[in-house]
Amino acid sequence: MRQATGEILVDTTGPGLFEVTASVRRWVEAQQMTTGLVSLLCRHTSASLTIQENAAGAVRDDLVRWLGRIAPEDAAYAHDDEGPDDMPAHIKAMLTGVTLSIPVMAGAPALGTWQGIFLIEHRHVGQRRRIAMHLIGA
Amino acid sequence: MRQATGEILVDTTGPGLFEVTASVRRWVEAQQMTTGLVSLLCRHTSASLTIQENAAGAVRDDLVRWLGRIAPEDAAYAHDDEGPDDMPAHIKAMLTGVTLSIPVMAGAPALGTWQGIFLIEHRHVGQRRRIAMHLIGA
Amino acid sequence: MRQATGEILVDTTGPGLFEVTASVRRWVEAQQMTTGLVSLLCRHTSASLTIQENAAGAVRDDLVRWLGRIAPEDAAYAHDDEGPDDMPAHIKAMLTGVTLSIPVMAGAPALGTWQGIFLIEHRHVGQRRRIAMHLIGA
Repeated sequence: MRQATGEILVDTTGPGLFEVTASVRRWVEAQQMTTGLVSLLCRHTSASLTIQENAAGAVRDDLVRWLGRIAPEDAAYAHDDEGPDDMPAHIKAMLTGVTLSIPVMAGAPALGTWQGIFLIEHRHVGQRRRIAMHLIGA
Repeated sequence: MRQATGEILVDTTGPGLFEVTASVRRWVEAQQMTTGLVSLLCRHTSASLTIQENAAGAVRDDLVRWLGRIAPEDAAYAHDDEGPDDMPAHIKAMLTGVTLSIPVMAGAPALGTWQGIFLIEHRHVGQRRRIAMHLIGA
Repeated sequence: MRQATGEILVDTTGPGLFEVTASVRRWVEAQQMTTGLVSLLCRHTSASLTIQENAAGAVRDDLVRWLGRIAPEDAAYAHDDEGPDDMPAHIKAMLTGVTLSIPVMAGAPALGTWQGIFLIEHRHVGQRRRIAMHLIGA
């Protein structure tokens, strides 16, 4: 049994889902473990992680629009120092979560056929986002 | 220290919470580890996992109804090829999440007294759903 | 490679985010592992866990207010035996989740600069809440 740690950098370009499946898969495969658990942590409070549909781009647009409706920028927030998209970004990060742990089987994350791993950017301005990775297995 | 992997199949019958606590517990106990971490991945984008109240059935009905209100079928979605319940199903899966990692203590998942593990079906038509399981421990 | 288990008790005082970052960090550091994965389980169905902004208190107030709007007490719920705040509490726990798994690097949880770990109390009356902890690593 052994462990590995790594990091993925994602340069976002505003609100949206940015797929990291290939990066995670490549890193896991490079560790050459057959079975294990890979855990991801998005190290930010205005971006988050989700496992979602990897085929239809319209799904991702709908998800972003829906998040915009559920946590609108024009609601009254006590915290508004960092602009109207800041507090909605925190709400969206709380709802979708910043951690994921995915079983590794046959040397790769055991995702379903239509599942991809995405970082969700919730701020208007693109950012460099960091995802910490941990793998344990054999 | 060692690992085990497994799978649970859940045949759903439309929207609802389907309890898998007993299946998870039985599988964990069969691995005969005293301490560890059990991780679950629902391998779909229109079903998800949650830890919720295991006693009152009315709670589960209320959760399903509330999800139906928050992600309504009659909203305007760009993605609607697969029917009016498809995009709401993706939203609900994003909100509730498809991964869980639960500490194992004294040979069983360390759930609280009132906690059960549930697969949530978000589509109208029942499906065969797959949950991948990973256990690491000793 | 080895494991450790532990528990954090949080005495809440009504709805709000209660920070447990220091307790988690202290416990992880006491186990003296350089690299690993720490997993938390909130053992309740009306309280939950989130990783959120650790600086501005107004963010936490806004999060609680937003949860109150999205899962209002005056909606019609089938389950209302335990008071008007009970069913909304279950909804909020489902949305935010009761499990977290965080990579440990350099002997500590690899949180981002602005990230803290919080228990969210969703009931009006303060409770003693239990968080089960599991650490695996070396």
